Amino acid sequence: MSKSNNLSYKDVEPLLIAVDCIIFGFDDEDLKVLLFQREIEPLAGQWSLIGSFVKVHESATTAAHRILTELSGLENIYMEQLYCFSDVDRDAGGRVVSVAYWSLIKIEDDNPDFKIDGHTSKWVSLSNIPPLVLDHNAMIEKAIDTLRSKAKYQPVGFELLPDQFTLPQLLKVYEAIFQRKIDDRNFRKKILKSGLLIKTENKDKSSSRKGSYLYRFDRKTYKKLKESGYDFQI
Amino acid sequence: MSKSNNLSYKDVEPLLIAVDCIIFGFDDEDLKVLLFQREIEPLAGQWSLIGSFVKVHESATTAAHRILTELSGLENIYMEQLYCFSDVDRDAGGRVVSVAYWSLIKIEDDNPDFKIDGHTSKWVSLSNIPPLVLDHNAMIEKAIDTLRSKAKYQPVGFELLPDQFTLPQLLKVYEAIFQRKIDDRNFRKKILKSGLLIKTENKDKSSSRKGSYLYRFDRKTYKKLKESGYDFQI
Repeated sequence: MSKSNNLSYKDVEPLLIAVDCIIFGFDDEDLKVLLFQREIEPLAGQWSLIGSFVKVHESATTAAHRILTELSGLENIYMEQLYCFSDVDRDAGGRVVSVAYWSLIKIEDDNPDFKIDGHTSKWVSLSNIPPLVLDHNAMIEKAIDTLRSKAKYQPVGFELLPDQFTLPQLLKVYEAIFQRKIDDRNFRKKILKSGLLIKTENKDKSSSRKGSYLYRFDRKTYKKLKESGYDFQI
Repeated sequence: MSKSNNLSYKDVEPLLIAVDCIIFGFDDEDLKVLLFQREIEPLAGQWSLIGSFVKVHESATTAAHRILTELSGLENIYMEQLYCFSDVDRDAGGRVVSVAYWSLIKIEDDNPDFKIDGHTSKWVSLSNIPPLVLDHNAMIEKAIDTLRSKAKYQPVGFELLPDQFTLPQLLKVYEAIFQRKIDDRNFRKKILKSGLLIKTENKDKSSSRKGSYLYRFDRKTYKKLKESGYDFQI
Protein backbone atom coordinates (compact mmCIF):
# COMPACT_ATOMS: atom_id res chain seq x y z
CA MET A 1 0.00 0.00 0.00
CA SER A 2 1.45 3.33 -0.98
CA LYS A 3 0.04 6.26 0.96
CA SER A 4 1.20 9.75 0.21
CA ASN A 5 1.96 10.35 3.87
CA ASN A 6 4.65 7.72 3.95
CA LEU A 7 6.74 9.19 1.20
CA SER A 8 10.37 8.68 2.15
CA TYR A 9 13.11 11.29 2.18
CA LYS A 10 14.36 10.30 -1.26
CA ASP A 11 10.94 10.47 -2.94
CA VAL A 12 10.43 14.19 -2.64
CA GLU A 13 11.75 17.26 -4.36
CA PRO A 14 13.40 19.82 -2.09
CA LEU A 15 12.23 23.45 -2.25
CA LEU A 16 13.88 26.81 -1.64
CA ILE A 17 13.18 28.39 1.76
CA ALA A 18 13.25 32.12 2.34
CA VAL A 19 12.45 34.49 5.17
CA ASP A 20 10.80 37.91 4.85
CA CYS A 21 10.67 40.51 7.61
CA ILE A 22 7.88 42.95 8.31
CA ILE A 23 9.55 45.71 10.33
CA PHE A 24 7.14 48.07 12.10
CA GLY A 25 8.31 51.39 13.53
CA PHE A 26 6.65 54.40 15.13
CA ASP A 27 7.81 57.94 14.44
CA ASP A 28 5.80 59.95 17.03
CA GLU A 29 2.81 60.22 14.73
CA ASP A 30 2.36 57.16 12.62
CA LEU A 31 2.91 53.43 12.53
CA LYS A 32 5.18 52.68 9.60
CA VAL A 33 6.65 49.70 7.83
CA LEU A 34 10.15 49.52 6.33
CA LEU A 35 10.33 48.80 2.61
CA PHE A 36 13.32 47.99 0.41
CA GLN A 37 14.10 48.05 -3.25
CA ARG A 38 14.47 44.44 -4.33
CA GLU A 39 18.02 43.64 -5.43
CA ILE A 40 17.67 40.37 -7.30
CA GLU A 41 15.88 39.26 -10.44
CA PRO A 42 13.05 38.81 -11.21
CA LEU A 43 11.47 42.14 -10.25
CA ALA A 44 14.74 43.83 -9.21
CA GLY A 45 14.16 47.51 -8.36
CA GLN A 46 10.57 47.06 -7.17
CA TRP A 47 9.42 47.69 -3.62
CA SER A 48 9.56 44.72 -1.30
CA LEU A 49 10.01 43.52 2.25
CA ILE A 50 13.57 42.71 3.24
CA GLY A 51 14.28 39.00 2.94
CA SER A 52 16.85 36.36 2.32
CA PHE A 53 17.08 32.73 1.44
CA VAL A 54 17.62 30.39 4.37
CA LYS A 55 21.02 28.73 4.21
CA VAL A 56 21.36 25.02 4.79
CA HIS A 57 23.22 25.51 8.10
CA GLU A 58 20.77 27.98 9.67
CA SER A 59 17.17 27.88 10.90
CA ALA A 60 14.57 30.29 9.52
CA THR A 61 14.67 32.17 12.84
CA THR A 62 18.46 32.48 12.65
CA ALA A 63 18.13 33.82 9.09
CA ALA A 64 15.55 36.42 10.17
CA HIS A 65 17.78 37.54 13.05
CA ARG A 66 20.74 37.71 10.67
CA ILE A 67 18.89 40.11 8.38
CA LEU A 68 17.68 42.34 11.21
CA THR A 69 21.08 42.51 12.84
CA GLU A 70 22.87 43.20 9.55
CA LEU A 71 20.40 45.98 8.84
CA SER A 72 20.14 47.67 12.17
CA GLY A 73 23.26 46.74 14.09
CA LEU A 74 20.84 46.24 16.97
CA GLU A 75 20.34 43.11 19.03
CA ASN A 76 17.38 42.20 21.26
CA ILE A 77 14.86 43.39 18.72
CA TYR A 78 11.27 42.25 19.30
CA MET A 79 10.64 39.61 16.66
CA GLU A 80 8.03 36.91 16.15
CA GLN A 81 7.30 34.37 13.49
CA LEU A 82 4.19 35.41 11.58
CA TYR A 83 3.29 32.66 9.14
CA CYS A 84 4.74 30.33 6.55
CA PHE A 85 3.61 31.35 3.05
CA SER A 86 3.82 28.44 0.65
CA ASP A 87 1.42 28.92 -2.25
CA VAL A 88 2.75 27.11 -5.29
CA ASP A 89 2.84 30.18 -7.55
CA ARG A 90 3.75 32.83 -4.97
CA ASP A 91 7.21 33.51 -6.47
CA ALA A 92 7.79 33.92 -10.20
CA GLY A 93 11.49 33.22 -9.63
CA GLY A 94 11.06 29.67 -8.40
CA ARG A 95 9.28 27.31 -5.99
CA VAL A 96 10.04 29.19 -2.77
CA VAL A 97 8.39 28.76 0.63
CA SER A 98 8.74 31.89 2.75
CA VAL A 99 8.61 32.09 6.52
CA ALA A 100 7.55 35.63 7.45
CA TYR A 101 8.61 37.33 10.70
CA TRP A 102 7.39 40.63 12.14
CA SER A 103 9.26 42.94 14.41
CA LEU A 104 8.74 46.15 16.33
CA ILE A 105 11.45 48.77 16.35
CA LYS A 106 11.93 52.15 17.98
CA ILE A 107 12.62 54.77 15.31
CA GLU A 108 14.91 56.96 17.38
CA ASP A 109 16.75 60.12 16.40
CA ASP A 110 20.09 58.37 16.38
CA ASN A 111 19.00 55.57 14.07
CA PRO A 112 16.34 56.96 11.75
CA ASP A 113 17.45 54.69 8.95
CA PHE A 114 19.34 51.98 10.88
CA LYS A 115 22.51 52.66 8.86
CA ILE A 116 21.09 50.63 6.01
CA ASP A 117 24.22 50.88 3.88
CA GLY A 118 23.91 49.75 0.33
CA HIS A 119 20.14 49.28 0.35
CA THR A 120 17.50 51.66 -0.92
CA SER A 121 14.82 51.79 1.73
CA LYS A 122 11.96 53.91 3.05
CA TRP A 123 9.51 53.97 5.93
CA VAL A 124 5.90 54.19 4.76
CA SER A 125 2.71 54.70 6.73
CA LEU A 126 0.28 51.79 6.83
CA SER A 127 -2.22 53.85 4.86
CA ASN A 128 0.32 54.45 2.13
CA ILE A 129 1.83 51.09 1.23
CA PRO A 130 2.55 50.78 -2.51
CA PRO A 131 2.07 47.56 -4.50
CA LEU A 132 4.90 45.23 -3.48
CA VAL A 133 6.48 42.22 -5.17
CA LEU A 134 5.10 38.67 -4.80
CA ASP A 135 2.72 38.22 -1.82
CA HIS A 136 4.39 40.88 0.33
CA ASN A 137 1.24 43.05 0.61
CA ALA A 138 -0.63 40.02 1.99
CA MET A 139 2.22 39.43 4.43
CA ILE A 140 1.94 42.99 5.74
CA GLU A 141 -1.84 42.69 6.06
CA LYS A 142 -1.49 39.53 8.10
CA ALA A 143 1.19 41.14 10.25
CA ILE A 144 -1.07 44.14 10.97
CA ASP A 145 -3.92 41.80 11.98
CA THR A 146 -1.59 39.87 14.25
CA LEU A 147 -0.14 43.05 15.79
CA ARG A 148 -3.66 44.29 16.53
CA SER A 149 -4.82 41.03 18.14
CA LYS A 150 -1.66 40.95 20.20
CA ALA A 151 -1.87 44.61 21.24
CA LYS A 152 -5.35 44.03 22.66
CA TYR A 153 -4.08 41.66 25.32
CA GLN A 154 -0.34 42.19 25.61
CA PRO A 155 1.53 45.45 26.12
CA VAL A 156 3.49 45.30 22.87
CA GLY A 157 2.99 49.04 22.30
CA PHE A 158 5.97 49.75 24.54
CA GLU A 159 8.32 48.06 22.06
CA LEU A 160 7.69 50.95 19.66
CA LEU A 161 8.66 53.73 22.08
CA PRO A 162 11.95 54.93 23.54
CA ASP A 163 12.70 53.73 27.08
CA GLN A 164 11.09 56.85 28.55
CA PHE A 165 7.85 58.17 27.11
CA THR A 166 4.86 60.33 28.01
CA LEU A 167 1.28 59.12 28.33
CA PRO A 168 0.24 61.11 25.24
CA GLN A 169 2.99 59.32 23.27
CA LEU A 170 1.77 55.93 24.48
CA LEU A 171 -1.80 56.82 23.54
CA LYS A 172 -0.60 57.82 20.07
CA VAL A 173 1.07 54.42 19.61
CA TYR A 174 -2.17 52.63 20.39
CA GLU A 175 -4.18 54.97 18.17
CA ALA A 176 -1.70 54.27 15.36
CA ILE A 177 -1.90 50.49 15.86
CA PHE A 178 -5.70 50.42 15.88
CA GLN A 179 -6.10 53.32 13.42
CA ARG A 180 -8.83 54.93 15.50
CA LYS A 181 -9.31 57.55 18.24
CA ILE A 182 -9.04 56.14 21.77
CA ASP A 183 -10.65 57.95 24.70
CA ASP A 184 -7.84 59.78 26.49
CA ARG A 185 -9.23 59.69 30.04
CA ASN A 186 -10.20 56.01 30.00
CA PHE A 187 -6.83 55.12 28.55
CA ARG A 188 -4.92 57.02 31.27
CA LYS A 189 -7.03 55.47 33.98
CA LYS A 190 -6.60 51.93 32.66
CA ILE A 191 -2.89 52.19 32.00
CA LEU A 192 -2.05 53.86 35.35
CA LYS A 193 -4.14 51.29 37.20
CA SER A 194 -2.43 48.39 35.40
CA GLY A 195 0.74 48.77 37.47
CA LEU A 196 2.82 48.44 34.31
CA LEU A 197 4.24 51.98 34.33
CA ILE A 198 7.02 53.46 36.44
CA LYS A 199 6.80 57.25 36.74
CA THR A 200 10.18 58.96 36.44
CA GLU A 201 11.21 62.37 37.81
CA ASN A 202 11.73 63.64 34.27
CA LYS A 203 9.43 65.73 32.14
CA ASP A 204 9.10 66.20 28.44
CA LYS A 205 8.53 69.92 27.82
CA SER A 206 8.48 69.86 24.04
CA SER A 207 4.72 70.03 23.70
CA SER A 208 3.67 72.27 26.62
CA ARG A 209 5.25 74.66 29.13
CA LYS A 210 4.06 72.60 32.07
CA GLY A 211 5.43 69.44 30.44
CA SER A 212 4.40 65.77 30.67
CA TYR A 213 5.98 63.27 33.02
CA LEU A 214 8.05 60.56 31.43
CA TYR A 215 7.26 56.94 32.28
CA ARG A 216 9.04 53.63 31.85
CA PHE A 217 7.49 50.22 31.15
CA ASP A 218 7.82 47.93 34.17
CA ARG A 219 8.94 44.66 32.56
CA LYS A 220 9.50 42.89 35.88
CA THR A 221 5.99 43.59 37.14
CA TYR A 222 4.55 42.59 33.78
CA LYS A 223 6.43 39.28 33.89
CA LYS A 224 5.15 38.57 37.40
CA LEU A 225 1.56 39.52 36.55
CA LYS A 226 1.72 37.40 33.43
CA GLU A 227 2.95 34.34 35.28
CA SER A 228 0.07 34.68 37.72
CA GLY A 229 -2.42 34.54 34.86
CA TYR A 230 -3.14 38.26 34.52
CA ASP A 231 -3.65 39.65 31.05
CA PHE A 232 -3.22 43.26 30.11
CA GLN A 233 -6.22 44.44 28.14
CA ILE A 234 -6.42 47.74 26.35
CA MET B 1 29.48 44.14 -2.43
CA SER B 2 28.11 40.75 -1.59
CA LYS B 3 25.45 40.78 1.10
CA SER B 4 23.92 37.54 2.27
CA ASN B 5 20.43 38.95 1.79
CA ASN B 6 20.87 39.30 -1.93
CA LEU B 7 21.69 35.70 -2.59
CA SER B 8 20.07 34.74 -5.87
CA TYR B 9 17.88 31.73 -6.52
CA LYS B 10 20.78 29.71 -7.92
CA ASP B 11 23.09 30.33 -4.96
CA VAL B 12 21.13 28.40 -2.38
CA GLU B 13 20.55 24.79 -1.55
CA PRO B 14 16.90 23.69 -1.48
CA LEU B 15 15.56 21.89 1.60
CA LEU B 16 12.87 19.31 2.21
CA ILE B 17 9.56 20.68 3.49
CA ALA B 18 7.19 18.63 5.59
CA VAL B 19 3.94 19.22 7.46
CA ASP B 20 2.99 17.71 10.82
CA CYS B 21 -0.52 17.76 12.28
CA ILE B 22 -1.44 18.06 15.94
CA ILE B 23 -4.98 16.66 16.08
CA PHE B 24 -6.85 17.43 19.30
CA GLY B 25 -10.04 15.60 20.24
CA PHE B 26 -12.34 15.50 23.25
CA ASP B 27 -13.96 12.27 24.44
CA ASP B 28 -16.43 13.56 27.07
CA GLU B 29 -13.79 13.56 29.80
CA ASP B 30 -10.41 14.45 28.49
CA LEU B 31 -8.61 16.47 25.85
CA LYS B 32 -6.56 14.06 23.76
CA VAL B 33 -4.09 14.13 20.93
CA LEU B 34 -3.88 11.60 18.11
CA LEU B 35 -0.55 9.75 17.76
CA PHE B 36 0.69 7.46 15.02
CA GLN B 37 3.37 4.87 14.65
CA ARG B 38 5.95 6.30 12.30
CA GLU B 39 6.15 4.38 9.04
CA ILE B 40 9.41 5.52 7.49
CA GLU B 41 13.06 5.27 8.48
CA PRO B 42 14.78 6.53 10.52
CA LEU B 43 12.80 5.79 13.71
CA ALA B 44 10.10 3.69 12.02
CA GLY B 45 7.75 2.17 14.61
CA GLN B 46 8.12 4.97 17.16
CA TRP B 47 5.27 7.28 18.24
CA SER B 48 4.89 10.43 16.22
CA LEU B 49 2.50 13.05 14.93
CA ILE B 50 1.01 12.34 11.54
CA GLY B 51 2.88 14.13 8.78
CA SER B 52 3.94 14.13 5.18
CA PHE B 53 6.42 15.78 2.91
CA VAL B 54 5.07 18.72 0.91
CA LYS B 55 5.00 17.94 -2.78
CA VAL B 56 6.30 20.45 -5.29
CA HIS B 57 2.82 21.15 -6.70
CA GLU B 58 1.05 21.77 -3.38
CA SER B 59 1.23 24.37 -0.61
CA ALA B 60 1.92 23.35 3.00
CA THR B 61 -1.73 24.08 3.82
CA THR B 62 -2.91 21.85 0.96
CA ALA B 63 -0.63 19.07 2.23
CA ALA B 64 -2.00 19.38 5.78
CA HIS B 65 -5.60 19.24 4.47
CA ARG B 66 -4.68 16.24 2.33
CA ILE B 67 -3.47 14.31 5.37
CA LEU B 68 -6.49 15.19 7.49
CA THR B 69 -8.94 14.31 4.75
CA GLU B 70 -7.20 11.03 3.92
CA LEU B 71 -7.27 10.11 7.59
CA SER B 72 -10.71 11.15 8.58
CA GLY B 73 -12.74 11.26 5.43
CA LEU B 74 -14.07 14.51 6.89
CA GLU B 75 -13.99 17.94 5.32
CA ASN B 76 -14.40 21.33 7.02
CA ILE B 77 -12.19 20.37 9.92
CA TYR B 78 -11.00 23.25 12.09
CA MET B 79 -7.32 23.69 11.23
CA GLU B 80 -4.76 26.41 11.77
CA GLN B 81 -1.11 26.81 11.02
CA LEU B 82 0.87 26.61 14.26
CA TYR B 83 4.50 27.37 13.52
CA CYS B 84 7.31 26.57 11.14
CA PHE B 85 9.97 24.43 12.87
CA SER B 86 13.31 24.74 11.14
CA ASP B 87 16.14 23.93 13.53
CA VAL B 88 19.09 22.61 11.58
CA ASP B 89 19.34 19.31 13.44
CA ARG B 90 15.65 18.68 14.12
CA ASP B 91 15.43 15.63 11.83
CA ALA B 92 18.05 12.87 11.82
CA GLY B 93 16.80 11.77 8.39
CA GLY B 94 17.73 14.97 6.56
CA ARG B 95 17.54 18.77 6.47
CA VAL B 96 13.77 19.10 6.75
CA VAL B 97 11.76 22.21 7.61
CA SER B 98 8.37 21.31 9.07
CA VAL B 99 5.27 23.47 9.05
CA ALA B 100 3.05 22.32 11.93
CA TYR B 101 -0.75 22.65 11.88
CA TRP B 102 -3.20 22.02 14.71
CA SER B 103 -6.77 20.97 14.42
CA LEU B 104 -9.79 20.33 16.62
CA ILE B 105 -11.96 17.32 15.99
CA LYS B 106 -15.13 15.90 17.49
CA ILE B 107 -14.54 12.32 18.64
CA GLU B 108 -18.03 11.02 17.97
CA ASP B 109 -19.37 7.53 18.43
CA ASP B 110 -19.53 6.91 14.71
CA ASN B 111 -15.94 7.86 14.06
CA PRO B 112 -13.94 6.94 17.14
CA ASP B 113 -10.86 6.16 15.07
CA PHE B 114 -11.63 8.06 11.85
CA LYS B 115 -11.31 4.88 9.78
CA ILE B 116 -7.55 5.16 9.95
CA ASP B 117 -6.92 2.16 7.71
CA GLY B 118 -3.41 0.91 7.54
CA HIS B 119 -2.04 3.13 10.29
CA THR B 120 -1.38 2.23 13.90
CA SER B 121 -2.76 5.09 15.96
CA LYS B 122 -4.03 5.98 19.42
CA TRP B 123 -5.62 8.89 21.26
CA VAL B 124 -3.66 9.89 24.37
CA SER B 125 -4.52 12.34 27.12
CA LEU B 126 -2.39 15.47 27.34
CA SER B 127 -1.07 14.28 30.71
CA ASN B 128 0.04 11.00 29.19
CA ILE B 129 2.00 11.81 26.04
CA PRO B 130 4.95 9.45 25.50
CA PRO B 131 8.33 10.54 24.11
CA LEU B 132 7.83 11.17 20.40
CA VAL B 133 10.21 11.26 17.45
CA LEU B 134 12.12 14.42 16.46
CA ASP B 135 10.70 17.67 17.92
CA HIS B 136 7.10 16.41 18.02
CA ASN B 137 6.75 16.80 21.80
CA ALA B 138 7.75 20.47 21.45
CA MET B 139 5.20 20.85 18.65
CA ILE B 140 2.44 19.52 20.90
CA GLU B 141 3.48 21.82 23.75
CA LYS B 142 3.35 24.84 21.48
CA ALA B 143 -0.04 23.73 20.15
CA ILE B 144 -1.43 23.42 23.69
CA ASP B 145 -0.18 26.93 24.54
CA THR B 146 -1.76 28.30 21.38
CA LEU B 147 -5.05 26.48 21.99
CA ARG B 148 -5.19 27.92 25.52
CA SER B 149 -4.47 31.50 24.43
CA LYS B 150 -7.06 31.18 21.71
CA ALA B 151 -9.69 29.59 23.96
CA LYS B 152 -9.45 32.56 26.33
CA TYR B 153 -10.81 34.97 23.76
CA GLN B 154 -12.46 32.91 21.04
CA PRO B 155 -15.11 30.23 21.40
CA VAL B 156 -13.00 27.39 19.96
CA GLY B 157 -14.29 24.95 22.60
CA PHE B 158 -17.38 24.34 20.46
CA GLU B 159 -15.25 22.73 17.73
CA LEU B 160 -14.59 19.81 20.08
CA LEU B 161 -18.24 18.99 20.78
CA PRO B 162 -21.03 17.43 18.75
CA ASP B 163 -23.48 19.91 17.21
CA GLN B 164 -25.75 19.62 20.25
CA PHE B 165 -24.27 19.58 23.74
CA THR B 166 -25.18 20.27 27.35
CA LEU B 167 -23.72 23.04 29.51
CA PRO B 168 -21.92 20.47 31.72
CA GLN B 169 -20.27 19.06 28.58
CA LEU B 170 -19.16 22.53 27.48
CA LEU B 171 -17.75 23.20 30.94
CA LYS B 172 -15.82 19.94 30.79
CA VAL B 173 -14.25 20.96 27.47
CA TYR B 174 -12.98 24.18 28.99
CA GLU B 175 -11.74 22.41 32.11
CA ALA B 176 -9.90 19.93 29.88
CA ILE B 177 -8.33 22.71 27.79
CA PHE B 178 -7.14 24.71 30.81
CA GLN B 179 -6.53 21.62 32.99
CA ARG B 180 -8.17 23.23 36.01
CA LYS B 181 -11.54 23.43 37.75
CA ILE B 182 -13.75 26.27 36.49
CA ASP B 183 -16.54 27.66 38.67
CA ASP B 184 -19.76 26.14 37.37
CA ARG B 185 -22.17 29.01 38.22
CA ASN B 186 -19.95 31.77 36.84
CA PHE B 187 -19.38 29.78 33.69
CA ARG B 188 -23.11 29.23 33.10
CA LYS B 189 -23.85 32.89 33.71
CA LYS B 190 -21.12 34.11 31.36
CA ILE B 191 -21.87 31.68 28.56
CA LEU B 192 -25.66 32.17 28.64
CA LYS B 193 -25.21 35.96 28.71
CA SER B 194 -22.83 35.83 25.73
CA GLY B 195 -25.67 35.22 23.29
CA LEU B 196 -23.60 32.51 21.61
CA LEU B 197 -25.84 29.59 22.54
CA ILE B 198 -29.16 28.50 21.06
CA LYS B 199 -31.23 26.38 23.44
CA THR B 200 -32.91 23.45 21.73
CA GLU B 201 -36.05 21.57 22.81
CA ASN B 202 -34.01 18.41 23.35
CA LYS B 203 -32.64 17.03 26.57
CA ASP B 204 -29.81 14.70 27.35
CA LYS B 205 -31.03 12.27 30.03
CA SER B 206 -27.92 10.12 30.25
CA SER B 207 -26.59 11.69 33.43
CA SER B 208 -29.75 12.54 35.41
CA ARG B 209 -33.46 11.71 35.37
CA LYS B 210 -34.41 15.37 34.95
CA GLY B 211 -31.91 15.69 32.10
CA SER B 212 -29.93 18.64 30.76
CA TYR B 213 -31.05 20.82 27.87
CA LEU B 214 -29.02 20.54 24.68
CA TYR B 215 -27.62 23.72 23.15
CA ARG B 216 -26.15 24.64 19.80
CA PHE B 217 -23.39 27.17 19.08
CA ASP B 218 -24.76 30.21 17.27
CA ARG B 219 -22.15 30.77 14.55
CA LYS B 220 -24.09 33.55 12.85
CA THR B 221 -24.39 35.63 16.00
CA TYR B 222 -20.72 35.01 16.80
CA LYS B 223 -19.71 36.20 13.34
CA LYS B 224 -21.79 39.37 13.72
CA LEU B 225 -20.50 40.08 17.21
CA LYS B 226 -16.95 39.51 16.07
CA GLU B 227 -17.27 41.90 13.15
CA SER B 228 -18.53 44.58 15.51
CA GLY B 229 -15.39 44.26 17.63
CA TYR B 230 -16.79 42.06 20.39
CA ASP B 231 -14.55 39.41 21.87
CA PHE B 232 -15.74 36.35 23.68
CA GLN B 233 -13.83 35.98 26.93
CA ILE B 234 -13.98 32.94 29.14
